[in-house]
Amino acid sequence: MKNYIKADEWNIIEEGFDPHLNKISESIFSLGNGRMGQRANFEETYTGETLPGNYVAGVYYPDKTRVGWWKNGYPEYFAKVLNAANWVGIEVKIDDEVLDLATADVSDFKRVLNMHAGILERTFTAKLKSGKIVKVKAIRFCSIADDEVGVISYSITPLNFGGKLTLMPFIDGDVKNQDSNYDEKFWDMVADEITGTEAYIKLRTKKTEFEVCTGSNIKLYKNNEKLNINPEAVRKEKFVGQTFSLDVKAKEEITLIKIVANLSSENYPKDELLKKTKSVIAKTTSKGFDVLLKEQTEAWATKWEESDIIIEGDVSAQQAIRFNIFQLFQTYTGKDDRLNIGPKGFTGEKYGGSTYWDTEAYCVPFYLATAPQEVSKNLLIYRYKQLGKAIENAAKLGFKDGAALYPMVTMNGEECHNEWEITFEEIHRNGAIAFAIYNYIRYTGDESYLSDFGLEVLIGIARFWKQRVNWSSDKQKYVMLGVTGPNEYENNVNNNWYTNLLATWCMRYATEAAEIVQNQSPEKSASLLKSLNFDAKEFADWADIIEKMYYPEDTETGIFLQQDGYLDKEQTLVKDLPASERPINQKWSWDRILRSPFIKQADVLQGLYFFEEDYDLETIRRNFDFYEPRTVHESSLSPCVHSILAAKLNDEARAYEFYLRTARLDLDDYNNDTEDGLHITSMAGTWMSVVEGFAGMRVRDGKLQFNPFLPTQWKSFSFTIGFRGVTLKVTITENGINIKNNNDVDVEVAIKNQFYKLKGNAEIEVNNAELV
Amino acid sequence: MKNYIKADEWNIIEEGFDPHLNKISESIFSLGNGRMGQRANFEETYTGETLPGNYVAGVYYPDKTRVGWWKNGYPEYFAKVLNAANWVGIEVKIDDEVLDLATADVSDFKRVLNMHAGILERTFTAKLKSGKIVKVKAIRFCSIADDEVGVISYSITPLNFGGKLTLMPFIDGDVKNQDSNYDEKFWDMVADEITGTEAYIKLRTKKTEFEVCTGSNIKLYKNNEKLNINPEAVRKEKFVGQTFSLDVKAKEEITLIKIVANLSSENYPKDELLKKTKSVIAKTTSKGFDVLLKEQTEAWATKWEESDIIIEGDVSAQQAIRFNIFQLFQTYTGKDDRLNIGPKGFTGEKYGGSTYWDTEAYCVPFYLATAPQEVSKNLLIYRYKQLGKAIENAAKLGFKDGAALYPMVTMNGEECHNEWEITFEEIHRNGAIAFAIYNYIRYTGDESYLSDFGLEVLIGIARFWKQRVNWSSDKQKYVMLGVTGPNEYENNVNNNWYTNLLATWCMRYATEAAEIVQNQSPEKSASLLKSLNFDAKEFADWADIIEKMYYPEDTETGIFLQQDGYLDKEQTLVKDLPASERPINQKWSWDRILRSPFIKQADVLQGLYFFEEDYDLETIRRNFDFYEPRTVHESSLSPCVHSILAAKLNDEARAYEFYLRTARLDLDDYNNDTEDGLHITSMAGTWMSVVEGFAGMRVRDGKLQFNPFLPTQWKSFSFTIGFRGVTLKVTITENGINIKNNNDVDVEVAIKNQFYKLKGNAEIEVNNAELV
Repeated sequence: MKNYIKADEWNIIEEGFDPHLNKISESIFSLGNGRMGQRANFEETYTGETLPGNYVAGVYYPDKTRVGWWKNGYPEYFAKVLNAANWVGIEVKIDDEVLDLATADVSDFKRVLNMHAGILERTFTAKLKSGKIVKVKAIRFCSIADDEVGVISYSITPLNFGGKLTLMPFIDGDVKNQDSNYDEKFWDMVADEITGTEAYIKLRTKKTEFEVCTGSNIKLYKNNEKLNINPEAVRKEKFVGQTFSLDVKAKEEITLIKIVANLSSENYPKDELLKKTKSVIAKTTSKGFDVLLKEQTEAWATKWEESDIIIEGDVSAQQAIRFNIFQLFQTYTGKDDRLNIGPKGFTGEKYGGSTYWDTEAYCVPFYLATAPQEVSKNLLIYRYKQLGKAIENAAKLGFKDGAALYPMVTMNGEECHNEWEITFEEIHRNGAIAFAIYNYIRYTGDESYLSDFGLEVLIGIARFWKQRVNWSSDKQKYVMLGVTGPNEYENNVNNNWYTNLLATWCMRYATEAAEIVQNQSPEKSASLLKSLNFDAKEFADWADIIEKMYYPEDTETGIFLQQDGYLDKEQTLVKDLPASERPINQKWSWDRILRSPFIKQADVLQGLYFFEEDYDLETIRRNFDFYEPRTVHESSLSPCVHSILAAKLNDEARAYEFYLRTARLDLDDYNNDTEDGLHITSMAGTWMSVVEGFAGMRVRDGKLQFNPFLPTQWKSFSFTIGFRGVTLKVTITENGINIKNNNDVDVEVAIKNQFYKLKGNAEIEVNNAELV
Repeated sequence: MKNYIKADEWNIIEEGFDPHLNKISESIFSLGNGRMGQRANFEETYTGETLPGNYVAGVYYPDKTRVGWWKNGYPEYFAKVLNAANWVGIEVKIDDEVLDLATADVSDFKRVLNMHAGILERTFTAKLKSGKIVKVKAIRFCSIADDEVGVISYSITPLNFGGKLTLMPFIDGDVKNQDSNYDEKFWDMVADEITGTEAYIKLRTKKTEFEVCTGSNIKLYKNNEKLNINPEAVRKEKFVGQTFSLDVKAKEEITLIKIVANLSSENYPKDELLKKTKSVIAKTTSKGFDVLLKEQTEAWATKWEESDIIIEGDVSAQQAIRFNIFQLFQTYTGKDDRLNIGPKGFTGEKYGGSTYWDTEAYCVPFYLATAPQEVSKNLLIYRYKQLGKAIENAAKLGFKDGAALYPMVTMNGEECHNEWEITFEEIHRNGAIAFAIYNYIRYTGDESYLSDFGLEVLIGIARFWKQRVNWSSDKQKYVMLGVTGPNEYENNVNNNWYTNLLATWCMRYATEAAEIVQNQSPEKSASLLKSLNFDAKEFADWADIIEKMYYPEDTETGIFLQQDGYLDKEQTLVKDLPASERPINQKWSWDRILRSPFIKQADVLQGLYFFEEDYDLETIRRNFDFYEPRTVHESSLSPCVHSILAAKLNDEARAYEFYLRTARLDLDDYNNDTEDGLHITSMAGTWMSVVEGFAGMRVRDGKLQFNPFLPTQWKSFSFTIGFRGVTLKVTITENGINIKNNNDVDVEVAIKNQFYKLKGNAEIEVNNAELV
């Protein structure tokens, strides 16, 4: 746990330069626009510890799988988002000395990430070995208005000398992934071009043959006056740049504006890439830095209008929640249904930038409420488009007849993960994908999604579950053997309650969805079912399983058992674990973790969270009280679900306690792993803790409901959400709740089970006293 | 499955050269003497497919572990027996053409492995591209009389030409392991020396710094007349050799005798290695080829006298059983308690040449009966010496107070394996190590082993089990969670019946052993227990667990359940599996195997085999009839246990059927994997099938018992065994059994529960009619 980020409502601030914190800060100050993302690597040379990271969404490399012992069914490769050409680089030489913060004496170092505008600013003063002192101010953003464009303004001022300044802005494609399995480099160069102040390089990935063209144009200013200097072209292996040499006097500020475009063959024909990149460079160069900055600021302002959460009385919490929202929008904008959300977004290499069930279970609710409907719909369509691969994936494991098993980790729909206990057994992910369809329709009311896309996916998933269970003649029930639940501290268990529940729910929902589509359009329904070779008997099979499924339960205590045999474990509690033995995933051997009762993240409770309407409060409380004391929360996805459930159980103090564990996870480097990248998907969980937890927001019967409380640590909090065409601003204070309708459409909302009509552009205020 | 080895009682014969079979033959025709082992790689150049293999026992390399996903507790490295310097090489040039069977036209190719004498002979005629034809005869052996010595006689005769013949015998240390995890070479050169006809090279392993010095002396003969040719020294990177050039006429036979010594720093101070190697070379050279050959032949004859099995009426079976016995003795001679038996012996790299529980469960019974007592005792002492490492290994997994967990795979006592489900969970191996102590004492009567070595090991093991079980308040029994039984087609199961049984057996036997030692010598007992910080309460703890252990069982059917929940599986049988889906370990994904009912090798039945006296025949039959039809026998260790149990159940046809699956496993390349090396440890299982199965031999109350039958396919079989100082030859014919006592000590034996006195040097014959 670190604590070096300065509290501020809208800015993330680091003051002073500590090389030991640099990789953490590179993660925290990352920029992105959904299409490209950059860690906060320095522009100038840095020979200290750094994790270079420049990522282009959707451009991946199938790195040959590395295992100790091969098991049948393992995927041949792990697709990973590539570290792409470094476009931020600017080598700075003063006379013959290279500016390098690892060797210079650095003072007045400050980084500010302005979240409201999506801009990163870095200032410092560096004294070189020669005694020369320079002041630098670097501003950078990844344009969210034009997501192929990155912009840098790099200003340098000699403070105590005059001399020769050499600036070499460059694009360097000779990069590699630090997590490369076999230490290979993944890029080949296809073409390069340097013309005056422009430089272009076109690189191609090995195997997948994606092409990315990166171009840049450079402008130079002295004290805001444009300079016309003919640069010298620099061309190396997979590297293009220009050298600008100039004589500067003390106190003269030289500013280099580098406008960059990154275009990928995912969006253009390969043979037009260079041409298109040139035209983007031409267009943006003609706009110039100030216009681009204005576009950026405005675009982010719009996003904030739709999604901001305001917390009064706690600057640190305010900063944290905005940081989470900001990073989520930097990662995914929903414009492209081929893209998704890696657990680390564009802020590191870990998890390969690939898609996990995190998207459906945690991110979809966030985007549903804070972004236009198309954004979450595109997350769903991503899976729809990968249905064929999910069917192939299931076939590799011996399933047939259109059964679909979505992968645990994927880029293009193929499974990438290679631990059998997760890859093959953590199949509850399939249920989360179905649940996201349900959740999307519940929130948006867009039932047409079912006939267009959803039903086909639901049938594939239901077919999988049907084949995955088997009849136990011993139990006279259907059972599901050999699974891993969300609690990955158990492997290969039988009858994981959550997975069994999700499986039958999927079959039930697929049946309902088929009815809905049948009612919408009998022709469409008939044609779809025919194309899927669907036999009506399948409904009967599902119904039989729904009826006769086995759910492990301790009937005496009313506890749903995480899996068969859970009660055979030594029933010790987390509070009895010595601090020196935690986190157990670092201190204990794997077998010890497995046979312990300790739970990594919500498992039975994840089911009670998803399907809370099916259980009375006492049942939820009993299970919460049983499982939470056994939960070590060693997944960043754990506390948020517990926070929401605690809120539901009116345990406001614990709801807030769980919230705190997630809110500043990365800003405070809680788990000592922020240097690898940010926990992007768990940031959505933090948002959920506030909106679903503290505000108790739900959608029931097509209406929004709230069941709010105010954490005692705060004065008030408010959030903006979109719901079925209206934007509501919800404010919770110690007195009660205020809901303002920003549109001219009437809505009905429930507050603590009481319904209120809320007219267009009106607001309602309900005092606590009025609520029982 | 292949079928190219010619049947012969004492020889393994290959006729004709098929490059596709070469790697298989390299395995089958392997030579060894317990100290070194060589695959049957050609002496001359071979550019075709080959797996070079020259191994020096006990010389290993800790190859850095390779995993997909690291789990706490994984070992840092996998120790593997090294491919050591190639000492068999002789480059042959005719004029300027290199003799290479991959490019020559080969005829009359024949390999004969003379098992009675331990000699490999290879003859062929090769027509080179130039049209020149040579005849070659190569004889090779690894001396079992002097286990540091290897000998080659290589004769070449030009048939249709005269010309220049160049022979370059060499020692090449620039070798690598094909299974190297990171493609490294493991040897560095320390010294080399070439003097006249002698050449020496001293190599050192990286990391472990073992040194091996290999020396050779060369003699040349023309038509049996010694030639005196001054060779030219050849020295390359990690390579020494000599070139002998001579003019030959057609039909003149040139013979090169290469006598080699391999000495390792395991047995000599490093700085004396070269000197010692020279003295071995001097000594063996002065003996000469014929004397060395005679020593070899005599030493093997002695081994056969103690261990032969004779089968009349089935040449193929006769060849197979001798091949198995021969390979076991080539692998392990019992002279050195630091050595053990890798599953592939010295015939390949697979399994790293390391020690598995195969040794205790399968090999110990073989050596007990066929070799002096010290041989199996040394196998036990190997583990005794590694007790400290076993305690460290347990400590890494969180156990304490002297609990010992022997590794799944090891060279020096440290765990090498890195699949959590096996490494951490397949802990029944610990029980097999205790069982081998019991078995050794049962067979030999040597109870002094307990106080000298055994009790300490048994206490460490019992302590492990005590900590490994936990009290289930749900079951009100002790349970053992998260294990993998011998059936590795299940992982992380709860209450594996076999493991639970073995655990309590170990605690009971440790308690008994402590009593025996106490009775032998109260002082010794007290001092040992004190040194182990043993508290008498530990006996009480063990007794409590023994009393209250849970064993899964289906009381209705009287079936011991392999593990909790086994009956929840779909109860399909192996006979219902389509042939196209077998072997399931190649055709099915791992998760599918795990949730299927199919069993890799004896699990419950392994327990019934070990502890048959504790169960009545009907119980054994019920369980056999239940489990065998669910067993796919996809481990080479499976059929023998089933063969023995079937014999016990008087199902002679099935006993023979299971025997057939193991007997020619490698000779017929049954599993298409003989090219990787031979299944050495399962060869002991084949021997057990004959002696424990067909002959029904057991030791009960210090006496040998037989319960024989003759497979209808055979006329008779007989075997020689040693037992407590006597050597018995047991012959089973269709009429009955004959036992001949080769010593002048009286013994008592039981045949079908009837006791007979057998005087020294006498024999008894009991007809079937006399036996009921």
